[in-house]
Amino acid sequence: MRRIHLSLAYDGTAYHGWQFQPSEATVQGKLQEVLSDLLAEEVRIHGASRTDAGVHARGQAASLATSTPIPTEKLPIVANIELPPDIRIVAARDVEEGFHPRFDAVGKHYRYTFCLGEIDDVFSSRYVSRVRGSLAVDAMSEAAACLVGEHDFSSFHNSSEDKPATTVRRLFHVGLTSPGEGLLQIDVVGNAFLYNMVRVLAGTLLEVGQRRREPGSVEKALQTARRSDAGVTAPASGLCLEEVFFLQDRLDEVVAELKRS
Amino acid sequence: MRRIHLSLAYDGTAYHGWQFQPSEATVQGKLQEVLSDLLAEEVRIHGASRTDAGVHARGQAASLATSTPIPTEKLPIVANIELPPDIRIVAARDVEEGFHPRFDAVGKHYRYTFCLGEIDDVFSSRYVSRVRGSLAVDAMSEAAACLVGEHDFSSFHNSSEDKPATTVRRLFHVGLTSPGEGLLQIDVVGNAFLYNMVRVLAGTLLEVGQRRREPGSVEKALQTARRSDAGVTAPASGLCLEEVFFLQDRLDEVVAELKRS
Repeated sequence: MRRIHLSLAYDGTAYHGWQFQPSEATVQGKLQEVLSDLLAEEVRIHGASRTDAGVHARGQAASLATSTPIPTEKLPIVANIELPPDIRIVAARDVEEGFHPRFDAVGKHYRYTFCLGEIDDVFSSRYVSRVRGSLAVDAMSEAAACLVGEHDFSSFHNSSEDKPATTVRRLFHVGLTSPGEGLLQIDVVGNAFLYNMVRVLAGTLLEVGQRRREPGSVEKALQTARRSDAGVTAPASGLCLEEVFFLQDRLDEVVAELKRS
Repeated sequence: MRRIHLSLAYDGTAYHGWQFQPSEATVQGKLQEVLSDLLAEEVRIHGASRTDAGVHARGQAASLATSTPIPTEKLPIVANIELPPDIRIVAARDVEEGFHPRFDAVGKHYRYTFCLGEIDDVFSSRYVSRVRGSLAVDAMSEAAACLVGEHDFSSFHNSSEDKPATTVRRLFHVGLTSPGEGLLQIDVVGNAFLYNMVRVLAGTLLEVGQRRREPGSVEKALQTARRSDAGVTAPASGLCLEEVFFLQDRLDEVVAELKRS
């Protein structure tokens, strides 16, 4: 058996999230179905991140074990023919037996995109969260600064079935940029994330931008560790898992790049 | 009653084309349904182009007559709240009583986009037609040149229920550009178009690019006026109606801009 690391991109709109569910279309479920057929063996896919329903990925990481004779570098090409167009295997490489995309990851980069203004672009509407009016971006940046570092992010996640052992996480970067007119991106790089954490961070910063809360209230919410002190959970459509890092050097490189932009 | 000109954008993926059908979701049908509800009167929408199932639009033109008290400039904002996110009213303006978007149009700009290479981008897959391998773009440009001007485009359309009075059309511009790595766009500006005409032109030029036909065969197909002498009908997903022109000056401006790029 070879173990293969897959880099995946998907448009999450049509899926009930990453994680397999017996009676719903999920990204993991669709990959397992198509690859099991293609490789003529029962394939089990492990993912680095259990993205929510409607959340997208440009760089999800996953792994599978297989005894297929298909060369690893050919696997994306043959699998993409069978996969639906909203799921693409972007790259595949051999990894050692013990590799696990979730436990071996040293960090992840998520990007949340708001689209501002009255009329949104129909061709990007699946990949953004729409906001009416303008935002106080300086106030949002001021509020975002306190999130970097190691903190108890209790206030900034929703409860889930899997209760985490600890709610302490380390964020390496939280930055706001405008990649084009009417667009505002929030890039978040961290070692790991709690359930809905990026969406709650984005929703809270949005409230700051809309002057519905003070920038200082974000630091206060970190301290009180009460969910009710943070803001709304921003919609799934605006969120994309950009990259999962397995090398500290690559993570440092991306953080340095984001800080420059 | 006021007559209002609408500029529309839509992602055609989920629709059985523009034209109303009693039992299928269409763009015209959805607009009539939502606007009739919103304006509390029976609204009939006229479109400039009956785009096919799966074809997109950045600049479809349409009109409606209404007695609503809602100011014209507010109509896009209130209507977009009710419309599904894959249909947007981009602009609205008052026009004179006799205005008809199809009969008053002096031309249209369509763009066909091919995506080349092994791995396509999941976030643009709805808006392109994917092609494996590389294309001989010079040969395609050579073939495209003969299409400009007034010709009988009999070979370059599929038969439809509405038989056109004439198959002569005038193309002002047919140009190929690469807006980014792995992308090839064919811009076509003409006075009017036959059924599937841009898709047959794109499919025929694709065959030239794949060296499956000689560049000279395109001019020959124009002369023979036999459908079998032209190429395949390229998939709907790659096609977008960019703009409908009502002023010759604006059409000339866009053609000049396209020629420069």
